[in-house]
Amino acid sequence: MTDETTDELMSATYRALCKHGYADVTMQDIADETDKSKAALHYHYESKHDLLLSFLDYLLEEFTTRLATVSGDTPTERLHNTFDAVLIPQDGETDQEFRTAILEIKAQSPYDEAFREKLVEFDQRLFEHFRDLIAAGVAQGEFRSDVDPDTTANFFVTAFNGAQTRQAAVGHPVEQTQRVLERYVETRLVTVEDTEVTPE
Amino acid sequence: MTDETTDELMSATYRALCKHGYADVTMQDIADETDKSKAALHYHYESKHDLLLSFLDYLLEEFTTRLATVSGDTPTERLHNTFDAVLIPQDGETDQEFRTAILEIKAQSPYDEAFREKLVEFDQRLFEHFRDLIAAGVAQGEFRSDVDPDTTANFFVTAFNGAQTRQAAVGHPVEQTQRVLERYVETRLVTVEDTEVTPE
Repeated sequence: MTDETTDELMSATYRALCKHGYADVTMQDIADETDKSKAALHYHYESKHDLLLSFLDYLLEEFTTRLATVSGDTPTERLHNTFDAVLIPQDGETDQEFRTAILEIKAQSPYDEAFREKLVEFDQRLFEHFRDLIAAGVAQGEFRSDVDPDTTANFFVTAFNGAQTRQAAVGHPVEQTQRVLERYVETRLVTVEDTEVTPE
Repeated sequence: MTDETTDELMSATYRALCKHGYADVTMQDIADETDKSKAALHYHYESKHDLLLSFLDYLLEEFTTRLATVSGDTPTERLHNTFDAVLIPQDGETDQEFRTAILEIKAQSPYDEAFREKLVEFDQRLFEHFRDLIAAGVAQGEFRSDVDPDTTANFFVTAFNGAQTRQAAVGHPVEQTQRVLERYVETRLVTVEDTEVTPE
């Protein structure tokens, strides 16, 4: 399969998932988003499950690239830009539907070892990204020396999961979580002047 | 229906959800957990959806009672005990499966207005519980005066959602989140002596 075909099929899968949700989407729905037949799709992928696994791989690669290209001159800036890159919808309406499809896949994870492995990889990549940024901040003296990179990174990944779940389940805006995390970085990580930490 | 019958049916629903998951559980599976027939179940509930809505109401009542009976002499103690009450599994293995079923229901929420309304109520109850505790702590001078009860309560609810999702999807232990939240209370909310906030 050429890269272009892969890209086309993956974009079609994305659109079909947004329209129909994980549980209801069919190979036919995905084929309908391309100029290919359902039979042609089955030539490349044995089943819907097979195609969705490839789709998760594709997303994981995109996610990894997005994390690797987060810009910023300092660890603080790169942390803020990471929150922005992973939390904030890239294309409005569709993103909300996509988030829901991902939540459906997460809810399948305990029943589906192959899905679970991919989800663990996503979790691990985001964790490592945060951990390395925080460790760099500590090493450079920008973050307090008593900050534990592992614990803090894990907490950020948990907050990210919570923001996604709450947005999908009850419509709570992710921007609120983003602001609290930014403030957390400023008040708990960054080495501060005394005036900022004195209780009022 | 007597209270006893309700309790029996709700316990049966809980067990059936843990065994089969939300998507696959049937009225027959639930009947199999009782000494009643499927027909008898249908006498009380029109459909599986109808029964699950009643089940969510039942859980909501339990959850509200659990929050209302959180003990502790001070707001800090009551916050710690709340983390314990809502985050930590009550019965091990089953709880993990139940958490997954709840995640499946959350993932249905965007497609199901009736489920969504219940989930919004859960979210709101937990939010209000945290907000009132934090506001009490600020009013009593136990928490810093610059702590915003709304923002902090929202953050705790998000962290709670994240801990649940991550536990179900990738097996990340909720206890880690609990420890970070406890530390957050100590360092960000409680009025501290200078020595504790001086960067090392």
